[in-house]
Amino acid sequence: SYEDLVPNLYYLKNQPNAIPYITSYYEKKWGFCLSYNDFRKLNKNSTYKVLIDSEFDSNGVLNYGELLIPGKTKEEIFFSSYICHPQMVNNELSGPSVLVGIADYLKNKNNYYSYRFVLIPETIGSITYLSKNLDHLKKYVKGGYNITCVGDERDWGLVPSRHGENISDKVGEHILKHNIKKYTKYSWLDRGSDERQYCAPGIDLPISSITRTKYGNYPEYHTSLDNFDLVTKKGLEQSLEIYLQCVKVFELSKNIKPKINVFCEPQLGKRGLYPNTSTKNSAAKIRNMMNFISYCDGNNTILEISEFCNISFFESIDIYQKIESANLFR
Amino acid sequence: SYEDLVPNLYYLKNQPNAIPYITSYYEKKWGFCLSYNDFRKLNKNSTYKVLIDSEFDSNGVLNYGELLIPGKTKEEIFFSSYICHPQMVNNELSGPSVLVGIADYLKNKNNYYSYRFVLIPETIGSITYLSKNLDHLKKYVKGGYNITCVGDERDWGLVPSRHGENISDKVGEHILKHNIKKYTKYSWLDRGSDERQYCAPGIDLPISSITRTKYGNYPEYHTSLDNFDLVTKKGLEQSLEIYLQCVKVFELSKNIKPKINVFCEPQLGKRGLYPNTSTKNSAAKIRNMMNFISYCDGNNTILEISEFCNISFFESIDIYQKIESANLFR
Amino acid sequence: SYEDLVPNLYYLKNQPNAIPYITSYYEKKWGFCLSYNDFRKLNKNSTYKVLIDSEFDSNGVLNYGELLIPGKTKEEIFFSSYICHPQMVNNELSGPSVLVGIADYLKNKNNYYSYRFVLIPETIGSITYLSKNLDHLKKYVKGGYNITCVGDERDWGLVPSRHGENISDKVGEHILKHNIKKYTKYSWLDRGSDERQYCAPGIDLPISSITRTKYGNYPEYHTSLDNFDLVTKKGLEQSLEIYLQCVKVFELSKNIKPKINVFCEPQLGKRGLYPNTSTKNSAAKIRNMMNFISYCDGNNTILEISEFCNISFFESIDIYQKIESANLFR
Repeated sequence: SYEDLVPNLYYLKNQPNAIPYITSYYEKKWGFCLSYNDFRKLNKNSTYKVLIDSEFDSNGVLNYGELLIPGKTKEEIFFSSYICHPQMVNNELSGPSVLVGIADYLKNKNNYYSYRFVLIPETIGSITYLSKNLDHLKKYVKGGYNITCVGDERDWGLVPSRHGENISDKVGEHILKHNIKKYTKYSWLDRGSDERQYCAPGIDLPISSITRTKYGNYPEYHTSLDNFDLVTKKGLEQSLEIYLQCVKVFELSKNIKPKINVFCEPQLGKRGLYPNTSTKNSAAKIRNMMNFISYCDGNNTILEISEFCNISFFESIDIYQKIESANLFR
Repeated sequence: SYEDLVPNLYYLKNQPNAIPYITSYYEKKWGFCLSYNDFRKLNKNSTYKVLIDSEFDSNGVLNYGELLIPGKTKEEIFFSSYICHPQMVNNELSGPSVLVGIADYLKNKNNYYSYRFVLIPETIGSITYLSKNLDHLKKYVKGGYNITCVGDERDWGLVPSRHGENISDKVGEHILKHNIKKYTKYSWLDRGSDERQYCAPGIDLPISSITRTKYGNYPEYHTSLDNFDLVTKKGLEQSLEIYLQCVKVFELSKNIKPKINVFCEPQLGKRGLYPNTSTKNSAAKIRNMMNFISYCDGNNTILEISEFCNISFFESIDIYQKIESANLFR
Repeated sequence: SYEDLVPNLYYLKNQPNAIPYITSYYEKKWGFCLSYNDFRKLNKNSTYKVLIDSEFDSNGVLNYGELLIPGKTKEEIFFSSYICHPQMVNNELSGPSVLVGIADYLKNKNNYYSYRFVLIPETIGSITYLSKNLDHLKKYVKGGYNITCVGDERDWGLVPSRHGENISDKVGEHILKHNIKKYTKYSWLDRGSDERQYCAPGIDLPISSITRTKYGNYPEYHTSLDNFDLVTKKGLEQSLEIYLQCVKVFELSKNIKPKINVFCEPQLGKRGLYPNTSTKNSAAKIRNMMNFISYCDGNNTILEISEFCNISFFESIDIYQKIESANLFR
């Protein structure tokens, strides 16, 4: 009867056309999610037959997808996203989409790092994966990201690791700072996805997370309205681009701490480092090169020097490569 | 004659009904303090006979009160207040009153720490006490407070140690922050009581000081107006409560640095840590527990974790004890 | 002809009465600088004869001036200024003037430090000097300044070393803070004179730079308008005074870290440290002395204690000497 059915129905009065996404863990119960509009159309005098075509299988397995793209070194950059929120797009499908985009970009390249990608159910999947692979991950993973909520065109954000200071936090923040006018720097207390496991005490992998509008922060979250009206091709492409820039920072920096092999400022002209034609930007370029060189004392990574000089990592790398061509590094 | 008397009279023209409190050290002189109103009533033509019933005794002694309440450990929490400002209440009697209140609270309990209480004349008394007990104090004192000006209902303040970073400073600031809307964080340069000795170079005991309106900061200071109009039962009780909270932080934290014994986030439900009934606050409670656990890496005290999680120490302890009951700590 | 001449003429359209200062390095070219007003007076139909009485001498030498005033220790304070911008006053002549003023002040004194002064062409001169003397300088130089743009009466500024934390940066900032209401704290990225070499990676001498209106920051810079209308006796004297104060800080502090030899606050009266007559400032003086003593734990230099106590180094030294006279230091 209607009275028996109602306690098992889930709807949102204040979002009447949204079907909520409700989960129940560790307890054998059932229910249906529907929009409040549909709920109101139910005939209170009808008799309802409930059919749930599902079963509890004590011999079930937990499957996940995993891909390793080997590089020159066994050290790995690790990407994770999750596959357990059927139908929803920003908080789910966007993550695997961007992850696959990164893998696609890297798959036929001669990469310095090895790249590992996993697609798992959130929480239980990452815990399972960690329980099987922790020693390997702790030994080889040098950076990486949990990818989630990367499809809409609204906010940008960084969900950092527990102390907010690992290399992936720093790379992520640098890339956001130099590309996005305004982004939200969350704290560890704002976390909510698999960084909870990857950065747990004793796990402490150097993982961070760059998001668009973060889980919980948008009205369509965990409803049927988290769909392709919200997530766009442009939003996904922007997120992919930001993550690819992070990948490039890892690839190009390789933890190098450049050290100049001359005392005092080198003469740029006779080494071909001085621009031949004076343009509007040439003074700034020389300035940035001299600034860069002034921090090449062997104690700073290229990313750190970029921060000191207030220039993007990619401008730094351009400078680094020119200086290297001139044989000015030890 | 009046002319002989006047240079030895002390009064306050701008507080005409207040008798000032004037002291003279290390010089044999005499004088009387009186209100300006009384001073004006003196007959200029009278002859005055001066009687001071006091003596300089080269065999005198410096007495002080001392109480030790032994605990499970020989490590001590140390409380000091002073007894040398006769008649005045906020700047004097309030201190011994609250100190006795703390001792009274602790005396019949099974305490973890031993508690030492001293009542001494300010400066000369604390120096004397230190000269007799320095080695013991440096070895055993793990925290404590100099208690002064704790009776009025106006301001609150923390007078920190020289570098403002000892455990008593941190405990005091945490308790003030979580209980008092607005308090004054003084600097070491604002000190003025026996923390001057307890935190002197080479002494460096981990002592701090929580005050109500601080010495020197209120108009009645060092006058007969520092009386029971100013100091109230409520003011004293509030101060006692704050100091007892500090005591509880020491008792409960014991310098433990909790370390979780599972990898990744533990499942709360099967360990009885998940609230059975969902209330308005249950989501926040779970959140705080997960935050707390995420910092249990063996490097942080419970007080430090409380600061990381933006929750009170007592909420942390509640969480800590629940997790301990579930055997989740190493 | 006029057409042949014009490409080799340099003038400033927006400063029509200023003759610009233009240099060309590492390329054999010629030219004349003149005011735009003079340029406009040139007869376009005249024939011009160009005479440059100069030569490229492959056996040329690079000369520089150097003066050492020996002190009690072989440790040196190093001053450098440059002599390669003929005619200009703030950006050039002011530097050697103040440098000579410092040397003049020190030459007949019994100084603690040895003082080394060099006058060199900028960049190429400092590099040459460093290439000949680096080992000695790295061993003995304990502080110093590159002196430039110290003659006008407008701005004040500090151009710090690469990390902005060497002793000369700190001395310079302390002296500016206590003497100048408003000064500009530049960053290493704003550098532009020989600190570029003295603080280069691998050189890392403890050099800083105090300037008036800095090179590049004033409209007359690198023109004939950088003259004695801009630079005044008063401006030069003020700069000399500031540098002499820095010298005095080095002379008086000698890297001493005072350590009091009594436990607790010493009694000032019986040691003659308590002012006999009470004046308006005597309470503050006692307070500052007690504050100073409270930091004499053997870990802080006199300059650091001055910063802790918010008093000038010279007030600290006055206190230090009084305490020393009373035999209160270890």
